Amino acid sequence: MYFEDYQPGAPVEHPATITVDQTAVIEFAEEFDPQYFHVDPEAAADGPFQGLIASGWHTAGLMMRLYADQFLSKEASLGGPGVDELRWPAPVRPGDVLRLRTEVLEARPSRSKPDRGLIRTRTELLNQHDTIVFSCEVLNFLAVRP
Amino acid sequence: MYFEDYQPGAPVEHPATITVDQTAVIEFAEEFDPQYFHVDPEAAADGPFQGLIASGWHTAGLMMRLYADQFLSKEASLGGPGVDELRWPAPVRPGDVLRLRTEVLEARPSRSKPDRGLIRTRTELLNQHDTIVFSCEVLNFLAVRP
Repeated sequence: MYFEDYQPGAPVEHPATITVDQTAVIEFAEEFDPQYFHVDPEAAADGPFQGLIASGWHTAGLMMRLYADQFLSKEASLGGPGVDELRWPAPVRPGDVLRLRTEVLEARPSRSKPDRGLIRTRTELLNQHDTIVFSCEVLNFLAVRP
Repeated sequence: MYFEDYQPGAPVEHPATITVDQTAVIEFAEEFDPQYFHVDPEAAADGPFQGLIASGWHTAGLMMRLYADQFLSKEASLGGPGVDELRWPAPVRPGDVLRLRTEVLEARPSRSKPDRGLIRTRTELLNQHDTIVFSCEVLNFLAVRP
């Protein structure tokens, strides 16, 4: 898959799922986001989310894993300059089962570097209740076909 | 620290630093972002960044750690709805030393929930060369003073 293979179109739901593991939630948060509602199940029960929830950055990482495995070209990826409008509209809890939906919004050749193009992809994670728990617009540079 | 203590003002550079560790870069990417330029130093040397670089989501996690430790109130944080204009303007490599700069852009009481307010904070990571390697605008809900 190269830049030319990514064209704006209908949303795609990808088949793989990730089940959110409580130990992984706590270990991620102990390293990167040690707020009590991410690391302490007992304190979290009395907190703003009535239970332990994943750090939003952990959820972003889970999205990236599904995105790298099922959407982003291994041959053509040249990294990404950023992400816009990242939102966590609902909590992610241990036991949740997440899947990825992608929709290419825009694909344009680079003006300065003719070996690549830039795509903008709306990216969502849905849980087992079909609730959107993460969304953003990802930017990716992709090599053109050699 | 409560919502009332976060007011728009001058940028603040925070003292703590994190040194990026190559093993941590690879382990994070093996779990969340297994692109070769994040997990394989030899292949990465011939890749688009001429060497191994951290996953952008790892960099985001390092930002969150510095932000949670030095900026975000432990008592008053009520989570965050999202992030805007996230950018990775320069690569993060093993050995880099990162520090945090924050600037509160906006602080407004919630209209629907009088117990809290929303702040918008421009957040940057700088490396040992004073290069900005990560920036975004973070949204946070904070409890008002009891």
